[in-house]
Amino acid sequence: MVFNYPNGKKYIPAAKIEAAPKIKKQKNAAYSNRGMTLEEDLNDSNSFYLDRNIAVIHKKPTPVQIVNVDYPRRSAAVIKEAYFKQASTTDYNGVYKGKYIDFEAKETKFSTSFPLKNFHEHQIVHMKAVLEQGGICFVILRFSTEEEIYLLEASYLLSFWERMISGGRKSITKEEVIECGHKIPLGFHPRIDYIKVIDYLYKLS
Amino acid sequence: MVFNYPNGKKYIPAAKIEAAPKIKKQKNAAYSNRGMTLEEDLNDSNSFYLDRNIAVIHKKPTPVQIVNVDYPRRSAAVIKEAYFKQASTTDYNGVYKGKYIDFEAKETKFSTSFPLKNFHEHQIVHMKAVLEQGGICFVILRFSTEEEIYLLEASYLLSFWERMISGGRKSITKEEVIECGHKIPLGFHPRIDYIKVIDYLYKLS
Repeated sequence: MVFNYPNGKKYIPAAKIEAAPKIKKQKNAAYSNRGMTLEEDLNDSNSFYLDRNIAVIHKKPTPVQIVNVDYPRRSAAVIKEAYFKQASTTDYNGVYKGKYIDFEAKETKFSTSFPLKNFHEHQIVHMKAVLEQGGICFVILRFSTEEEIYLLEASYLLSFWERMISGGRKSITKEEVIECGHKIPLGFHPRIDYIKVIDYLYKLS
Repeated sequence: MVFNYPNGKKYIPAAKIEAAPKIKKQKNAAYSNRGMTLEEDLNDSNSFYLDRNIAVIHKKPTPVQIVNVDYPRRSAAVIKEAYFKQASTTDYNGVYKGKYIDFEAKETKFSTSFPLKNFHEHQIVHMKAVLEQGGICFVILRFSTEEEIYLLEASYLLSFWERMISGGRKSITKEEVIECGHKIPLGFHPRIDYIKVIDYLYKLS
């Protein structure tokens, strides 16, 4: 099951939910042996941070263009037609020790490089704007075959992006990720302790 | 038209869109003489801040529980069944001069008080958590009949909430809003210049 809805108002029969999120399951096939997606691991980590007053970081809802809504009765609106929209920002943001935190998480099945096509132009523009405002911005990169997770600061991602724009390679080599990024060991609780890397990089602890 | 989708991937016929967002239009009926909703005014202000590198603040997408998606062909997914979920955070957040900014915007047709039922328990909990992390958190309150807009810091909202929990009144009086809040004059560009109040309150300029 991909969707969690601790704050959901509506009860939806389990059978219906199981039938729905097909894309996600295919996409994260390599990850399924652990039964958890990168997104679930990050949501779990963010819940851990929130419960312990360590940080307040949430994943933004998936942007949806709602076209048709049915109101069979009051407080029971059913969206009958909607479309996925492209997000204009990164997926995760929040606050840690007064600082603005902003990041995107992506994974690849490749073992030797991380394709830059995982990111969209507007996300790159957003990351630049966040850095200009003095926010802490980064990406979490997962090599799914090796189960390795790295935190790479946005400033590095932006230079690799620039290299591509200037006609260079369309990916970041694994060596570059290792050299510029910071490996996050997979833990139990929290699963992906990225705040530890932030503490180290920005001397916040 | 309530929905904007500058980054939307899908083209949706205008006629279909016009037919959709009925709730919103009813809700903001008192505001319709200006043809703009509070949300649109804030989105416009945030675009103004973004374009001029003043601040990076976005409205979060409406949280939707997706139940059934139809894939007639690749890259043309249609959401056939979905439900509105209750948001677990406030609607707006972002970064201004390195600081985390977080707020909720609400309006009332009442002239003498602002009902606290406009806020949900989990939003109050979220605001508390943001303040504990040293974030800048507030609400933008609009008295639609008078066309008056105030910025009220979350710390005040939390005390009014506490008063209600302890058996006190279920609203903030207009006098209290005037005394504890800061009136934001309605402008042209940006329409709601709340960053000016933040500058004043937190000495950021």
